[in-house]
Amino acid sequence: MSQRILDTISSPADLKDLSYEQLDELAKEIRGEIIAVCSMNGGHLASSLGAVELIIALHRVLNCPHDRIVFDVGHQSYAHKLLTGRLNRFETLRCEGGLSGFTRLNEGPYDSHDSGHASDSLSMALGYALARDLAGTDQRVAALIGDASISGGMALEALNFIGQSKTKLTIILNDNEMSISRNVGALSLYLGRARTSRTYLRARDGVENRLNQTGTIGRTLAIAGEVAKRSVKNLMVPGMLFEDLGLTYIGPIDGHSIADVEEAVTRAQRIDGPVIIHAVTRKGAGYAPAEKRPDLFHGVGPFDIDTGKPLPSAPGPVKYTKVFGDALVREAEANPRIVAITAAMTDGTGLAPFARRFRNRFFDVGIAEENATAMAGGLALGGQLPVVAIYSTFLQRAFDQIATDVCLPNAHVVLALDRAGLVGADGPTHHGVFDIPYLRILPNMKVLAPSNEAELVDALHTALALSGPVALRYPRGAAEGVELPEKPQAWELGAAGERYQPAGQGDPRVSILAVGRVVGRARAAADLLAQKGISCRVTDMRWVKPVDEAAVREAASSQLVVTAEEGVVSGGFGSAVLESLSRQGLCPETLQLGIPDRFVEQGPVDSLLAKVGLSPEAIAQRIEETLATLGARG
Amino acid sequence: MSQRILDTISSPADLKDLSYEQLDELAKEIRGEIIAVCSMNGGHLASSLGAVELIIALHRVLNCPHDRIVFDVGHQSYAHKLLTGRLNRFETLRCEGGLSGFTRLNEGPYDSHDSGHASDSLSMALGYALARDLAGTDQRVAALIGDASISGGMALEALNFIGQSKTKLTIILNDNEMSISRNVGALSLYLGRARTSRTYLRARDGVENRLNQTGTIGRTLAIAGEVAKRSVKNLMVPGMLFEDLGLTYIGPIDGHSIADVEEAVTRAQRIDGPVIIHAVTRKGAGYAPAEKRPDLFHGVGPFDIDTGKPLPSAPGPVKYTKVFGDALVREAEANPRIVAITAAMTDGTGLAPFARRFRNRFFDVGIAEENATAMAGGLALGGQLPVVAIYSTFLQRAFDQIATDVCLPNAHVVLALDRAGLVGADGPTHHGVFDIPYLRILPNMKVLAPSNEAELVDALHTALALSGPVALRYPRGAAEGVELPEKPQAWELGAAGERYQPAGQGDPRVSILAVGRVVGRARAAADLLAQKGISCRVTDMRWVKPVDEAAVREAASSQLVVTAEEGVVSGGFGSAVLESLSRQGLCPETLQLGIPDRFVEQGPVDSLLAKVGLSPEAIAQRIEETLATLGARG
Repeated sequence: MSQRILDTISSPADLKDLSYEQLDELAKEIRGEIIAVCSMNGGHLASSLGAVELIIALHRVLNCPHDRIVFDVGHQSYAHKLLTGRLNRFETLRCEGGLSGFTRLNEGPYDSHDSGHASDSLSMALGYALARDLAGTDQRVAALIGDASISGGMALEALNFIGQSKTKLTIILNDNEMSISRNVGALSLYLGRARTSRTYLRARDGVENRLNQTGTIGRTLAIAGEVAKRSVKNLMVPGMLFEDLGLTYIGPIDGHSIADVEEAVTRAQRIDGPVIIHAVTRKGAGYAPAEKRPDLFHGVGPFDIDTGKPLPSAPGPVKYTKVFGDALVREAEANPRIVAITAAMTDGTGLAPFARRFRNRFFDVGIAEENATAMAGGLALGGQLPVVAIYSTFLQRAFDQIATDVCLPNAHVVLALDRAGLVGADGPTHHGVFDIPYLRILPNMKVLAPSNEAELVDALHTALALSGPVALRYPRGAAEGVELPEKPQAWELGAAGERYQPAGQGDPRVSILAVGRVVGRARAAADLLAQKGISCRVTDMRWVKPVDEAAVREAASSQLVVTAEEGVVSGGFGSAVLESLSRQGLCPETLQLGIPDRFVEQGPVDSLLAKVGLSPEAIAQRIEETLATLGARG
Repeated sequence: MSQRILDTISSPADLKDLSYEQLDELAKEIRGEIIAVCSMNGGHLASSLGAVELIIALHRVLNCPHDRIVFDVGHQSYAHKLLTGRLNRFETLRCEGGLSGFTRLNEGPYDSHDSGHASDSLSMALGYALARDLAGTDQRVAALIGDASISGGMALEALNFIGQSKTKLTIILNDNEMSISRNVGALSLYLGRARTSRTYLRARDGVENRLNQTGTIGRTLAIAGEVAKRSVKNLMVPGMLFEDLGLTYIGPIDGHSIADVEEAVTRAQRIDGPVIIHAVTRKGAGYAPAEKRPDLFHGVGPFDIDTGKPLPSAPGPVKYTKVFGDALVREAEANPRIVAITAAMTDGTGLAPFARRFRNRFFDVGIAEENATAMAGGLALGGQLPVVAIYSTFLQRAFDQIATDVCLPNAHVVLALDRAGLVGADGPTHHGVFDIPYLRILPNMKVLAPSNEAELVDALHTALALSGPVALRYPRGAAEGVELPEKPQAWELGAAGERYQPAGQGDPRVSILAVGRVVGRARAAADLLAQKGISCRVTDMRWVKPVDEAAVREAASSQLVVTAEEGVVSGGFGSAVLESLSRQGLCPETLQLGIPDRFVEQGPVDSLLAKVGLSPEAIAQRIEETLATLGARG
């Protein structure tokens, strides 16, 4: 087997002397590598396949790491990783201790920021560009952003400032041609009109012919380039929106033509101000199963390369997301005021069945958590009962809206925080570990943390039966495997749930107050401690806010009160228990278990839980150690 | 004196039968009332004067409270208050227990949300409109939003969804003609081009003639109306940006012509989908001093009506804002890497001297806290040292950006949180009471809370000398009156400052750990307690994070450890001290003083501090009570 071109690329400089024929071959090799690794590790396959030529072209024109590419979300950056010295580590993608699925500053000088949250690339690139202007260097700065991400509020804020600032900055708008039915928002429709304009369609048809004969260049390419070039001029009108905002618009161009993208980026460098290049790509390009169903290949688990079918996974419990989605449908059947809102995550948040069943009561606002949340406030004030389902980490975007547009008017909005806690392979930008403190500090807010899928059904029912703002948080992935209730029960406000104590113990020496799925781990820890003769009671607290003061008092009769939560210790549930103890004038020994004050890297959830001290063994060990200290002191 | 027309208006229905001549007279009376009350109580004068005709016209066409008007920020809603049954309470505007300076749901059925934070009106109105669609009623919904607010990310997110949703909704874009030099962003420049287009200028000139002959209608009005109508058609192109986003654009129209606005709103009601009416107004219209200097009359204190000059206030200490601004200029003189960023608050955050002195190192991004913060992350990664000055309450908008774009990459960004704590007359949307918990929970973050203006100078110096993210919080208004240091000193990371104990006491029975300006009040409380024979030491902790563990240990030798902070108790500094006590295995009696778990209404700061228990007397009393409980228990 002859050496791949990819194996000869140790840095982007090595791209400069390759012919377009070699570059097309390289693109193929990169796709092969991405498909192979994603088929084993899972990953953001479709986006990364769609951006291969864009990334090659950018690295041909720019001189990184002197120049800067800022990737939005970063899930499309796999080709960038392969071209910047990370080929030999690429098989560790998304593994514990391995390469991140996003760009990370700690992976070397070629990455420009710690990406993961959508829509921040324009602000980041703007910051780099302004820093460059002040330093007076010739650094070139480019941002690569998708058509969904660019409609996020912070990206629009940045566009507004970029257009006025006149700083030199190249934005590649990576417009996934096939995602039109999934994207939402007027901007997306606008881009769709640009894509389907006649001149562009002609250009694209030429382009598609060429793509179908991968590896050959020549006459077809020349024609496609010519048509694309003409289209650039003819289509200045469709880009008028960006021109109105002060950016020079180039496009639409074919984002799978390295030559066309190079030409556009080169031209952008000659313009003294901000430029937006509208590049049309196909999600999943170059891998038939992904081209056909890019939605299924946005984020994938391991799959069979030949068929594209997911590898059979061990049978396991249902996912929390599905339990939530199904339960919400049942609730909505009984209550016509219930409406559901997602921010571009219909599938991810389990709302697809709701969307199918109650089309006019379902709203996908796109990547726009701020609007999603404040709009929910308006819907509630207007008499409906909105359920906003957003991942814990992304709801951070709407903190002020929760405070001002939901809590201050005491609007009955139910916030469903999926992916609360540690999420696994997506790492620090995706762990949902701050929500307990950022929610519980807000007046009027109630916060529920069910300990398993049966409790999730009851917690949702409870949240819908209450008034004012209510949040419920539950983890990513497989639930605990308990039976679901036939008929959901509403919980008493602020009342703790089940107490667990291993058989044959007297008054417990240790009381663990736990919330969320950590309850199960705490119970297992109690079993471990029982084996060592340490009596321990575990209370499923259910409510982060209001905290059950009586349950706290009950616990305080133990020698040691332990709190356990899957979230940051600072300001978290444990902190709420300390506040309650203080209010009640109770002074037992205490121990808070949770996420320490550092960002948690990627890895399997169970491994991460063990690392932060939330596995049964780690919980038991910390309690033993603490008791030993008390013994020594006492 | 004959009765005013205003006195005959008990609800908006009473407007319907008035002639335009009477309406013009009414507008004059409303302005008189607004000017009179603001001259006594202070308030948002210029905005409210600019929106009088818009509000009259909206209430003529709509039938509130069945129909809904959503006011952005709400600081322009004074005329609305006067027309909806609140005339007799209007003199209590912004007073303790009086009318809010914003719209508030608790003021009756005519207010649609608790306004105060910019850019949320479109999401709120969208929520109302979607709720109306689901309920199938004929409710009409309008939002009134300024040209600065509409460039905020959440407003742009809402526009994007409104354009696609096709729901029936009328947006009045209140474009303050005279604010062009102060507004920033490409959208603002775009609106400026629409305003200065030839057809509009012709329309405006006719209009201005009319305005100069207030009280007369007739031929001039007719001409102006005609010209404006023509301009509507001719100017569809300037509004193309909004049309591209799926909204019908009407304008620009003269926002001071009640007839023109009525006509536009009426036409909007006939269009089955979202409409944006671009109305041009003058901030401060109808009050010469405010028209001349709308910037000075945006938010005013008491002033002399004849001259517009501020009433002489009692000489007092310098304001924290000014201390910060001056100190930053001195730091920037010594360190060329320092850049400053504001989100539309150059004056409010004290950055005006910096902006004048270092024009190219200063960035006003407009109402765009998300972009401000993430852009700062980019500037820091690009080698500069950004200082982002944003009011505590508005920085809530950037919570995710602080977490993801600043803390995760450990970027050296200094966040200067002005207006931290209770702010007074602006009430619950403006109190900065959540920042301690929302900042301290983030890894890598350091949080400083200087206790007076001298410490603010040192805290800023310290923040600039550190690395990674650092926040400093300081209050609104007058400082404590201490001498400023000649040369700022950098503090040791996480080391508490001065201990205070009234003379002649032994080991303290009570230890108060305090941050921010509450330190001074705690010292006064210690003096009060000393008179009753209760010994008490007050430690100026300076750092919210990292907390000085040694100082906490020192305090724990007292019988009672009290924490005091001007922020919510939940998850706050007191909570951090409880966590520290727990970590160190210390179990003294504890008491947390701070803002309780409810929204705090408006009022003079000292009065509010007393209400929440942070006046010297209240602190002393709570401590006495707690000691009494301990005695009873012990």
